[in-house]
Amino acid sequence: MAVTAVSPQDSQGSAAPGPADPLYPADRIEAARRAAAAAGLDALLISPGADLRYLAGYQALPLERLTCLVVPAAADPLLVVPVLEKPAAEASPAGALGLEIVGWEETDDPYALVAGRLPPAARRVAVDNHMWAEKLLAFKAALPHAEQSLAGDVLRELRVRKSAAEIEALRRAASAIDRVHRRIGEWLRPGRTEREVARDVADAIVQAGHVTCDFVIIASGPNGASPHHEVCDRVIRSGDPVVVDIGGTTEDGYCSDSTRTYAVGEPGPDFRELYEVLQRAQQAQTEAVRPGLASQELDAVGRRIIEEAGYGEHFIHRTGHGIGLETHEEPYIVAGSDRRLEPGMAFSIEPGIYLPGRFGARIEDIAVCTEDGGERLNLTARELVVLPG
Amino acid sequence: MAVTAVSPQDSQGSAAPGPADPLYPADRIEAARRAAAAAGLDALLISPGADLRYLAGYQALPLERLTCLVVPAAADPLLVVPVLEKPAAEASPAGALGLEIVGWEETDDPYALVAGRLPPAARRVAVDNHMWAEKLLAFKAALPHAEQSLAGDVLRELRVRKSAAEIEALRRAASAIDRVHRRIGEWLRPGRTEREVARDVADAIVQAGHVTCDFVIIASGPNGASPHHEVCDRVIRSGDPVVVDIGGTTEDGYCSDSTRTYAVGEPGPDFRELYEVLQRAQQAQTEAVRPGLASQELDAVGRRIIEEAGYGEHFIHRTGHGIGLETHEEPYIVAGSDRRLEPGMAFSIEPGIYLPGRFGARIEDIAVCTEDGGERLNLTARELVVLPG
Repeated sequence: MAVTAVSPQDSQGSAAPGPADPLYPADRIEAARRAAAAAGLDALLISPGADLRYLAGYQALPLERLTCLVVPAAADPLLVVPVLEKPAAEASPAGALGLEIVGWEETDDPYALVAGRLPPAARRVAVDNHMWAEKLLAFKAALPHAEQSLAGDVLRELRVRKSAAEIEALRRAASAIDRVHRRIGEWLRPGRTEREVARDVADAIVQAGHVTCDFVIIASGPNGASPHHEVCDRVIRSGDPVVVDIGGTTEDGYCSDSTRTYAVGEPGPDFRELYEVLQRAQQAQTEAVRPGLASQELDAVGRRIIEEAGYGEHFIHRTGHGIGLETHEEPYIVAGSDRRLEPGMAFSIEPGIYLPGRFGARIEDIAVCTEDGGERLNLTARELVVLPG
Repeated sequence: MAVTAVSPQDSQGSAAPGPADPLYPADRIEAARRAAAAAGLDALLISPGADLRYLAGYQALPLERLTCLVVPAAADPLLVVPVLEKPAAEASPAGALGLEIVGWEETDDPYALVAGRLPPAARRVAVDNHMWAEKLLAFKAALPHAEQSLAGDVLRELRVRKSAAEIEALRRAASAIDRVHRRIGEWLRPGRTEREVARDVADAIVQAGHVTCDFVIIASGPNGASPHHEVCDRVIRSGDPVVVDIGGTTEDGYCSDSTRTYAVGEPGPDFRELYEVLQRAQQAQTEAVRPGLASQELDAVGRRIIEEAGYGEHFIHRTGHGIGLETHEEPYIVAGSDRRLEPGMAFSIEPGIYLPGRFGARIEDIAVCTEDGGERLNLTARELVVLPG
C-alpha cells in the first residue's frame, strides 16, 4: 500500500519542520480564515499539496483517499484524514497546531463528513487550485447549493510575498543549484549523450543539498531550440551550444531553478551574437526589478531588446514565474499581467532565443524584489562559459 | 523554467515507448472515443497524468499551462499544448499517432481554444479524474452550458483489465521490487535508524530496475502500528518487527508495490501469533482470487479469519487497490464494493494487523485475476523472515 510516499531523498531528510520553525509559523491557518471571510467565502477546502504544506506544515501526497484541511470562515478549522493516516498526520507539524484531526474509516463518506462540519447555510466554498476533479465534483455533490471557486484567489496573496525566512530558504536553494552549475565541466563534454550528462547532473543536484531532483534539461545543438526538450541520446559535439536548465526541492520544501547555456568548444559567430543579445536582455531585466513595476513591463524590458536585435519572433515564452514551495507559482512575469512587483516577491528572469533547426539559448536567475530594487539569488557567471571541446 | 520534469532516474531511461510498443497501442484514443459516445458524452478532456499516458503515450507533467488531449465523440481528437511544449509533444509517441497537435501562445486563452474546437451543442463533457480544480473551473467558464463529469467513469473500464503486455510489465515491476526485498538483510540491522535503512532501500529500488522510487515505508517496533508511518530517526532494536512497504515505477510506466514484515532478531510469541493469523488470511485471499468473485467478498475472506482470531478491530484498512500506470487505481478490494473480478485485473492483496503502542504487520502481494483463478506476481517468501538481531 502506497500512500505516504517517501522519495529516496526525502528519506534522507530530517523530520518535517515544526510550527516553531519560522518557515512554517502556526498563524497561517488563521490568516487564511480571515482572508476567506474578507472574500465572502464560507470555507476553504485544502487537499494535499503546496497550500496544505504552507498552511499546516503537513506534507501529504495527493491520493484517492480524501485528506482535507477544512477552514470555515466562522468556525474552528479541522483536518480530515483517512483513519490509517491519522498517526502520520498527528506526528506531522499539523499535530502541534492544536487542530482537530478527524479520521474517517474506509467505508465512510468523507465528503459528507466535511459537508456536515460546514454551516448549513454555506453557499461559497473555495478549493485549492490543484484539488483533483474527482474530489471537486464529489464536494459539489455533497454541497449542491455551494458555489465553488479557487482558494488560490485568497491564498495567493498570502504566499506571493515571501517572509525573510522564506527568502533565506530560496537563497539556500539557489546556492545549491549554483554549486551544480559550477561543476558542469565535469560532465558536459563532446562524445557524451545528453542522457549520460543528465544522469550525472541529477545525482549532483541531490548531492548539492536538494532532497529531490525536480527536472534536468540538457538541450544540445539544435535541441536547444526546444525550450523544454526532453533529454535524449543525442551525442554532444564540439562547438555545440547546450542549454542546461535544472532545479530541485530542498528539505524545507523550497525550490531552485536556474538555467545557463554553455558552449562545448568554441561556438560559431552567429551563436555568439545571439548570446550577447540575450545576456544584455537578461541583465537589463535583472536591473529593472523594483517595487511598483508591472510584471508586463518587466517582460517588455527584455522583449524590446531582443526584438530590436531582430530575434523577437524567437523569444516564444514569458519572462518568468514565481517560485517558492512550488517551482511555478505567482507572480508570473508575462505580457498582459499588470500585477505590480512588491517587496518579498520571488520569481525567475529567464528570457530565451530559439532558432529552429539551429540552436537556442536561455539564461535564468531567481530574483527577489526588495524594498528599493531587486536581488539576484543565483550568482554564477552569466557570461558565456566555453567548456573544453 | 521547469515544465518537462526529468527525475534522476527518468534521465537514465531510454526514449518513451512508441505507439508500435504493445504497451501503448495506437487504437486507445479511438476506443475512448467510442466509449465516450456510448456513455452519451460529447467529449473527453484529458490533462497530463496516467490517462494521457495510457491514451497517447505522452508523459507530460501537470503544470499551470494547459496541456489537454481533446477527444470529441463525433470528431477527430486533438492535443492542445503550450507552444513551447510542441516540439516535445511531437517528439513523443503522441507525435506518431497522426493526431493534430495545436500549440497555444503565452497570451492565448487555451480554454477558449478548446471550447472552439468542440461542437456548439456540447452539453456533456468529461474530464480526467486528476484534472486540477483551476483547469476544471476554467473549462466550466469556457463551456458554461456543458455539464462536467469524470472521464474515469469510461476510461476505468478500458484501463481496469490489463493486456498481456501490461501484465508482463507488472511482472517485471514485481520482480524488480522482489529483488529489493531479497536484499533487505544487507540494510535492516539493530542500531540503524529507519531513515538510514530507507535511504539504502530507496537507492536499491532504483538499482533494481525502477526509474523512480515512489515510496519507502520502514516502520519498526511500535511505529509498525501506523500503516503509513513516515520514516523517522528511531533506532531499530533487536526483537523489533519491521514493516517494509516499498514500490517504484519502471521505465515503461508500470508500478510495483510489495510489503513484507521482518523480525530483526527473534520476536516475542505475541507477534509470532499475530503474524501467523495474518499470513493465513493473506494466503486465503490469494487463493480465493477468481473471475466473478466480488471485491467485497475477497476483502471478507481475509477479514473473517482476522476477526475470528480476535484481531478484527485492528485490521483498519481495505484489503487492496488496483495497480498499473498508477500505484492506486481500480479495482479497489474493499467492503461495500460489488465489482466482480475479471481476467486481467491486477491488484494488491495486503491485509494488516496493527496493535497501537506495540507493533504491526502487513503482507502485500500484487495478484492478477486469470481465466480460471489468480496469479501472484510477487514471489518472495511470506513466512516470517527473522534477520540477525
